[in-house]
Amino acid sequence: MNAPAAGDSRGGSGDPPRTIGKLRVPMTTTGAFSWQSVVAAGAGPRAGVLTTPHGTVETPAFIPVGTKATVKGILPEALREAGAQIVLANTYHLALRPGADVIRQLGGLHTVMGWNGPILTDSGGFQVFSLAALRRVTDEGVLFRNHIDGAEMMLTPESAVAVQNELGADIIMALDVCPPYPCSRAEVEEAVRLTLVWARRSLAAHNCEDQALWPIVQGGVERDLRERCAVELVAMNFSGYAIGGVSVGEGHEHLKTVVGWTAPLLPADRPRYLMGVGEPRDVVAAVGAGVDMFDCVLPTRNGRNACAFTFDGQVRLRNEVHKTDRRPIEEDCDCPACRQFSRGVLRHLFAADEMLGPILVSIHNIRFFTRFFGRLRQAVLAGRFDAEAQGLLDRYYGNG
Amino acid sequence: MNAPAAGDSRGGSGDPPRTIGKLRVPMTTTGAFSWQSVVAAGAGPRAGVLTTPHGTVETPAFIPVGTKATVKGILPEALREAGAQIVLANTYHLALRPGADVIRQLGGLHTVMGWNGPILTDSGGFQVFSLAALRRVTDEGVLFRNHIDGAEMMLTPESAVAVQNELGADIIMALDVCPPYPCSRAEVEEAVRLTLVWARRSLAAHNCEDQALWPIVQGGVERDLRERCAVELVAMNFSGYAIGGVSVGEGHEHLKTVVGWTAPLLPADRPRYLMGVGEPRDVVAAVGAGVDMFDCVLPTRNGRNACAFTFDGQVRLRNEVHKTDRRPIEEDCDCPACRQFSRGVLRHLFAADEMLGPILVSIHNIRFFTRFFGRLRQAVLAGRFDAEAQGLLDRYYGNG
Repeated sequence: MNAPAAGDSRGGSGDPPRTIGKLRVPMTTTGAFSWQSVVAAGAGPRAGVLTTPHGTVETPAFIPVGTKATVKGILPEALREAGAQIVLANTYHLALRPGADVIRQLGGLHTVMGWNGPILTDSGGFQVFSLAALRRVTDEGVLFRNHIDGAEMMLTPESAVAVQNELGADIIMALDVCPPYPCSRAEVEEAVRLTLVWARRSLAAHNCEDQALWPIVQGGVERDLRERCAVELVAMNFSGYAIGGVSVGEGHEHLKTVVGWTAPLLPADRPRYLMGVGEPRDVVAAVGAGVDMFDCVLPTRNGRNACAFTFDGQVRLRNEVHKTDRRPIEEDCDCPACRQFSRGVLRHLFAADEMLGPILVSIHNIRFFTRFFGRLRQAVLAGRFDAEAQGLLDRYYGNG
Repeated sequence: MNAPAAGDSRGGSGDPPRTIGKLRVPMTTTGAFSWQSVVAAGAGPRAGVLTTPHGTVETPAFIPVGTKATVKGILPEALREAGAQIVLANTYHLALRPGADVIRQLGGLHTVMGWNGPILTDSGGFQVFSLAALRRVTDEGVLFRNHIDGAEMMLTPESAVAVQNELGADIIMALDVCPPYPCSRAEVEEAVRLTLVWARRSLAAHNCEDQALWPIVQGGVERDLRERCAVELVAMNFSGYAIGGVSVGEGHEHLKTVVGWTAPLLPADRPRYLMGVGEPRDVVAAVGAGVDMFDCVLPTRNGRNACAFTFDGQVRLRNEVHKTDRRPIEEDCDCPACRQFSRGVLRHLFAADEMLGPILVSIHNIRFFTRFFGRLRQAVLAGRFDAEAQGLLDRYYGNG
């Protein structure tokens, strides 16, 4: 179903039953999606609660990325303890390996990930356009050679929905065309045209009540195309909307402008999801424009490279300066890395090429993001978003 | 101190204080070591409790290996939950990187490892003989080039103690000479001579009350040399004794024979530690001969290679046969891998080269070892060691 169910008051946190000695069985409730605003200030920042069959998500929310059905190096309970409420998995990667049919036979994505909370999958389109060898884009779909064994494959709006139905996430995405930046206006026009045609076909192909299907607004940095795409998608009445085609090289100012054009055109009572965005200044701008959800690989990718996020900016833990530093990454952080290990120890773990380094800093970075988003949400609830956001950015980027 | 303190009744489990937002401070009690037998049957299997300044260890006990001050890929709380009571770290590796002085400046090994329970360090000798380019062994010590930057270094009994004093483990080992197998009798004789000379010098060099110093019985597969080495070391009155120079290629029968000669010569009231042994048949034979402690890289090394230990033998999780298998590694295991993930999911994680595969199977394997040792201990306590041990081996090696 795609229209939000009003008045659904379930407030389960998605905590899994801790069944000992047996595989956990995922919840199989009938789908009920809603996003209810707690504070919504017209076109400005919002705070809300998203309800899904696998529990609720307090928004604004950060979505850690679990590309191949695992947030790299992090056990599900550690992810939950770090404050994650929802995770993302990549359809393209999972469809190739182990295959959507295998995921289904293994019990579906929630069982495979050991994660009984909400899950979102992308459509696979972004990876087809960025990772695969592209053969041809037609109205029917995208013909490509995959990046693993080079086999020729076809992705259509219908097959993207079918694969995601088989994976079984709570929220699935319609196949879109994501133009690069820079890009000719003609190419962006064609991307919007196909994105709209494919969104309508995705809607027709999707008939699983347990999963919400959301479309993606494209349109590059062309205001009228963004507006047309948003307006036409809204007319199709989805239960939530994504903004795509940002964070592809256009830079902060363009991103801010595009989100500022697009977000106010999306329904006030539906969640808004900005894809692939996690840089703090981009997040703050988008939350300020009324965006509710964000996914990004930054915390885990940077974490694996010894780069830790803190409220005072990023810290490169491989640096010699940390060699005998007994302070944690961040004094007031409650993550396992900060509770138990010093910067000096983390530096040693990276220098010695020990897995525990990437594991700990990835967990810390996820915790940083959930704390950062928590601060933004609290600020919205307290009616002091602008001041708090400015303070966070000044401190993070060293202008304080 | 090296003599056991009789009647020490402290029974702390070594559980760390969960200080939030601050680095955990290690306990700094005055050293008190003892091993008290709960059941001791003459020269046969024993069950006991080892007391150290950082808590107690129920024996027979398995010691997971944390070579570079981390059990690869496992957070300390996960290690504890998997039933580990004591961990080992390698002096050679830590002395080279980050350096014993750095470990000390970072608060010592317990702080660095985030592990407030008992820790044991080896002397570094085994790695000098196996990893480094050996230059010369003299009465003074070993001259070698390290395997990282090739720098020439000298390891003496005194420097091995000094480095281990700086690292700060609860139990430290005297420098020994570990002959390979096979080996001429003359070489084994010389190894025993130096091991005895160095044990006496280690004792003279060690004056830290918080750390127990244990020597290592060498002697290859020569009965009289093993006996001489054991008797002379016992005459020096250490608080515990290790048996070394096994698991170097001599095979199960030789190992069983050597341990059978040596263990009964060691004091009945002191713990006995068999170095580098973890193969179930070797463990069972040695526990049967009265050995109390074992360290081995098998659970973590095999775990990283997708090889899971079960009571029915090892399972290779990369195999195609597990592709859609929804069963856990082991039905009655309470580890996070078995509670939350199927064999099919674990196979996917290894096929996709995801860190979570090695992490989960390493944790499972540690848990297998602590459960296996728990079964042996319970059997000793119940007075049915022989039958239980035979049943375990029949099942594990498929003779059941």
